[in-house]
Amino acid sequence: MEPRRHFASDNNAGIHPAVLEAIAAANVGHVRGYGDDPWTERARDAFRRHFGPAARAHVVFGGTGANVLSFAALLRPYEGVVCAASAHVAVDECGAPERFAGTKLLTVATEDGKLRPSDVEAKLHGLRDQHHVQPRMVSVSQTSELGTVYTPDELRDLARLCRARDLLLHVDGARIANAAAALGTSLGAIAGDCGVDVLSFGGTKNGLMGAEAVVFLAEGLGADFRFVRKQGMQLASKMRFLSAQLEALLGGDLWYENASRANAMARRLARAVERIPRVRLARAVEANAVFAILPRDAIAPLQQRSFFYVWDEDQSEVRWMTAWDTTEEDVDRFARDVAEVVGAAP
Amino acid sequence: MEPRRHFASDNNAGIHPAVLEAIAAANVGHVRGYGDDPWTERARDAFRRHFGPAARAHVVFGGTGANVLSFAALLRPYEGVVCAASAHVAVDECGAPERFAGTKLLTVATEDGKLRPSDVEAKLHGLRDQHHVQPRMVSVSQTSELGTVYTPDELRDLARLCRARDLLLHVDGARIANAAAALGTSLGAIAGDCGVDVLSFGGTKNGLMGAEAVVFLAEGLGADFRFVRKQGMQLASKMRFLSAQLEALLGGDLWYENASRANAMARRLARAVERIPRVRLARAVEANAVFAILPRDAIAPLQQRSFFYVWDEDQSEVRWMTAWDTTEEDVDRFARDVAEVVGAAP
Amino acid sequence: MEPRRHFASDNNAGIHPAVLEAIAAANVGHVRGYGDDPWTERARDAFRRHFGPAARAHVVFGGTGANVLSFAALLRPYEGVVCAASAHVAVDECGAPERFAGTKLLTVATEDGKLRPSDVEAKLHGLRDQHHVQPRMVSVSQTSELGTVYTPDELRDLARLCRARDLLLHVDGARIANAAAALGTSLGAIAGDCGVDVLSFGGTKNGLMGAEAVVFLAEGLGADFRFVRKQGMQLASKMRFLSAQLEALLGGDLWYENASRANAMARRLARAVERIPRVRLARAVEANAVFAILPRDAIAPLQQRSFFYVWDEDQSEVRWMTAWDTTEEDVDRFARDVAEVVGAAP
Amino acid sequence: MEPRRHFASDNNAGIHPAVLEAIAAANVGHVRGYGDDPWTERARDAFRRHFGPAARAHVVFGGTGANVLSFAALLRPYEGVVCAASAHVAVDECGAPERFAGTKLLTVATEDGKLRPSDVEAKLHGLRDQHHVQPRMVSVSQTSELGTVYTPDELRDLARLCRARDLLLHVDGARIANAAAALGTSLGAIAGDCGVDVLSFGGTKNGLMGAEAVVFLAEGLGADFRFVRKQGMQLASKMRFLSAQLEALLGGDLWYENASRANAMARRLARAVERIPRVRLARAVEANAVFAILPRDAIAPLQQRSFFYVWDEDQSEVRWMTAWDTTEEDVDRFARDVAEVVGAAP
Repeated sequence: MEPRRHFASDNNAGIHPAVLEAIAAANVGHVRGYGDDPWTERARDAFRRHFGPAARAHVVFGGTGANVLSFAALLRPYEGVVCAASAHVAVDECGAPERFAGTKLLTVATEDGKLRPSDVEAKLHGLRDQHHVQPRMVSVSQTSELGTVYTPDELRDLARLCRARDLLLHVDGARIANAAAALGTSLGAIAGDCGVDVLSFGGTKNGLMGAEAVVFLAEGLGADFRFVRKQGMQLASKMRFLSAQLEALLGGDLWYENASRANAMARRLARAVERIPRVRLARAVEANAVFAILPRDAIAPLQQRSFFYVWDEDQSEVRWMTAWDTTEEDVDRFARDVAEVVGAAP
Repeated sequence: MEPRRHFASDNNAGIHPAVLEAIAAANVGHVRGYGDDPWTERARDAFRRHFGPAARAHVVFGGTGANVLSFAALLRPYEGVVCAASAHVAVDECGAPERFAGTKLLTVATEDGKLRPSDVEAKLHGLRDQHHVQPRMVSVSQTSELGTVYTPDELRDLARLCRARDLLLHVDGARIANAAAALGTSLGAIAGDCGVDVLSFGGTKNGLMGAEAVVFLAEGLGADFRFVRKQGMQLASKMRFLSAQLEALLGGDLWYENASRANAMARRLARAVERIPRVRLARAVEANAVFAILPRDAIAPLQQRSFFYVWDEDQSEVRWMTAWDTTEEDVDRFARDVAEVVGAAP
Repeated sequence: MEPRRHFASDNNAGIHPAVLEAIAAANVGHVRGYGDDPWTERARDAFRRHFGPAARAHVVFGGTGANVLSFAALLRPYEGVVCAASAHVAVDECGAPERFAGTKLLTVATEDGKLRPSDVEAKLHGLRDQHHVQPRMVSVSQTSELGTVYTPDELRDLARLCRARDLLLHVDGARIANAAAALGTSLGAIAGDCGVDVLSFGGTKNGLMGAEAVVFLAEGLGADFRFVRKQGMQLASKMRFLSAQLEALLGGDLWYENASRANAMARRLARAVERIPRVRLARAVEANAVFAILPRDAIAPLQQRSFFYVWDEDQSEVRWMTAWDTTEEDVDRFARDVAEVVGAAP
Repeated sequence: MEPRRHFASDNNAGIHPAVLEAIAAANVGHVRGYGDDPWTERARDAFRRHFGPAARAHVVFGGTGANVLSFAALLRPYEGVVCAASAHVAVDECGAPERFAGTKLLTVATEDGKLRPSDVEAKLHGLRDQHHVQPRMVSVSQTSELGTVYTPDELRDLARLCRARDLLLHVDGARIANAAAALGTSLGAIAGDCGVDVLSFGGTKNGLMGAEAVVFLAEGLGADFRFVRKQGMQLASKMRFLSAQLEALLGGDLWYENASRANAMARRLARAVERIPRVRLARAVEANAVFAILPRDAIAPLQQRSFFYVWDEDQSEVRWMTAWDTTEEDVDRFARDVAEVVGAAP
């Protein structure tokens, strides 16, 4: 069977060959479970190289787990999280933050998926009033759910506000590699260097089979995290096979190569489709997401050729994601499909 | 490096080669995430072949998740679970059932890790009294944490009581394959055929990299499980790679071969060590666990040679587990180590 | 000391004398605890007279408890509640719904504190998608937090939508008596008769010392509520003294007299202050709340004379509530204070 | 109707007249809600006089709320509470600690309802092991559910162990007044003076209509309790009426008089029934509970005359509680009833 690639999501892609090799290479004999193994130690070292010597990374199964346990580890249940109304934690995690951590999300409508300091300030009321959830954390998605990227300056501005108002800054970094690649920075330059306190580090969307990490960056946070992780059902017994993936990603440049490739393919796709009549880019293409507005009648026939998701039914807006394995041929073929189908649409 | 194997736990073993191949074989192009893929469909089919056409299997990351979500799916938070005091859910899951599902565990001390109907009946008081948690489920571990195995008759007796008293029967089957292999039965013969309502199916300890499933066996249960799973942080995005493992295990006889091997090696180890003076088997060896009582001073030196866990400090009792990859040479070498170290102990 | 009354909140008022007498009258000898007493039985009867023979009322301590336990009793934790962004459950309960019931609130901005069917429909997306909290209940506040009242027709329209979309309809009736008095209807006419499924019945703000009830109106709901109530820390041991209050309120016309008085005093206050230059009524006065916009500099001096809360700092909007014990003299004196202070403001 | 008193429970008694008067006296005009009132301030002062100047008391509705919120305020959800298997929190609160606070209770079987340091030490294993709930608090009931009383020395021994092992000491003081009266000590002498960190202070069983308090005794604890209380659905809006009760109880000697009376009546009852043939006291009578073993056939006929609860069906053991309002005549009449019914039993 000829491998097929589409543009539905970066988590529809498979495993990068080097990651699969790393899993195989870790498959030697018996090692202690639950993270007391050399692969996990090396993965934690790799996080320290990227995020600074004080970074404490803890491997978890998935992104929802990483986000929810970041909250559960650092917040009391009456403390709230300010986030964008479009944030993954608010929209796509089936109420897991509320259920497990008791956390109320204090959401702000945004134009482009990105929170500004003024958005946060607008939620800082009812302070010290026992009837109100107390804002205690700001959570931003990097890249945002709308494919936009926070610059280091923007993060620093948020962190400055957080320090001033005794808030913690969390980054949902399911696609932090795409953000760093887009900005041309290191990973640390958009995390601890900017004053981020805790990071959900995403590997799965960037070429892993499945592994994420909660990374505590600020001092004094998360000392009891291993209990939170176990109680939160995110402790892998054969952890070496998750850690080996993260080591493969972060030990060299794979994180960057995968993310850069995905980003470049998104730009290529954007350039190709914006030339097609009746197709309009709905948002700036800053990382690996392309949002486009198509003639309504073109959507279903195009999905027949290659699966993707409609983002906003009312606006006839669709989302196309590129991945670490997207090729120029994939993009060009898909752009031709778009042109054909849109051209044929009534 | 020469691969090393020890006797600390079956989850210290690696991935069976056929399972790793299955992961690699699934690594082709893009497929939809979250279980809407052919590997997951085939894995679910495989569960139906083993557990009957009505079985509904849902893939999750880990065993704690499988157990806790079984409770969360089927119980109201004021309903309790009767289980052995030694049960994994009661002892080794850091309070995850209480935290996520609100479930109180109604524990019974047992001799051999196995619940009897009379143990359950002893907990059936306070019924309809609003001050008391209402017993609503019985959970048994197959094999038990003490390495013992429930026979089909024993399960049927429990199921009969459950039916009579409006209780659900859950099996924590982290090692259900070892139990079936020990009994010489099919998997279904110790699950739905006996009246089990819901099963935590364990693959990780039997040669997988990491994949488990919640399997609803009785009609009408678990219809909304996918929401429980997502809210419970157990939904894998690249699920095909978990499903492919389960398909590899259950598609043919691998589940049986792996478990039989582990069981046989435990029997071999038991036979070897029971001949050693001053070593005494503490419990019947029914599956892949060997509990032995050693001279206290022999434990640490022996752990130096090959890592394992002390089970009961006071009794000088240790636990040795065999795995799918344990060899006769491993056993014989370890038995020689035991003999030497015990022989040299004061 | 001369008793003082202000306009801060109807829960700043005391106990109606007849209610205090009822408490004293219940203070005879020993009776069984936890609701197994004649006062509770009579209170439940009174609820049946008002809300129909199928109504099942359960006494609880407070309004937050009533709301949260309504959710906990009827919703799975991944099911969400559509409500106004200004709803008490969303704003003033410190995240209790999220913490105890796991419930995500799906809030809608409203002009006047009232939800319309179209507001609800706007939240009915992501249905059957495992990533999204599933809308399952609509909660409206009667009267709303903005002092407005749902008419029977408006409730029926919501109930019709709820039936069509498999949603439950909850009324937070902390001030349902004020609503009924304002509309000139019975209590039942704006509850079960309109298709309301479950009601948080408020007594505390209408002259009780402290007692509320969760009232299940639709068939088949809440059968296990007494366990939910106990686990929810809302079961009073000496329940007769809460039930006696509710009986005093509902056994005759006290509920109506108290609420009518409060409503009439709000109308009187509204008429008086709208004649004062530079004072503007911010909203329609439909029950016992008056929202007014004052010169900013008048607020603090006026609060010195008589305590009340600022509703919206930015708009210079204040809230004045009348209670069952507010007198015409209270109103007239306060209106004179307003006139004086506003007149003197720069 | 002639008031009737029985021996089922001290919470079956009514309100002491002085407490009812205090409620009536607080019924003057409007005061701010939620505890910002003079009665609450005076009640908090009274707690400071009894429990030391550093005591911070917070009024709550009920005893289950007080216990659960003590846990929620001071424990992380993976931290456990060591308590007697017979403790109210373990047996009679319908899983509220597990549900709201996530807390696992680590129960110890006891002879007399009282925990000893060695009982606690037996539960201090699995420390720092991420698979195990971490013991972090010891909770004792004063008086115990078996009517026994901890002496100051016994409490100090527990507190010493707690300090040494970094555990907090909680007292469920639903009947702490009975304990102090039995010991002839002040309330503080069996709380903060012994090293108790946090106390659930019970008023309801000692003559109040319904009011309890969480009292933080050790420094630095509970600073954020008002949020925990509101989120825990235990914040009374008209708090003055709860506080006035506590003030009436603690402002003078009422707490002591009520408790002493109840204790004396229990001793009188014990003396009377132990002389009856075929009646045997099952336990020492140290406070206001009498446990007796009767001929099995006498129980139901005796309950017909005067309601009480069977404690242990198998042992034919019943529990009789005296209350603040039990009279000598009540005791003597009931003892005659016992003699008659037992005498007539086959």
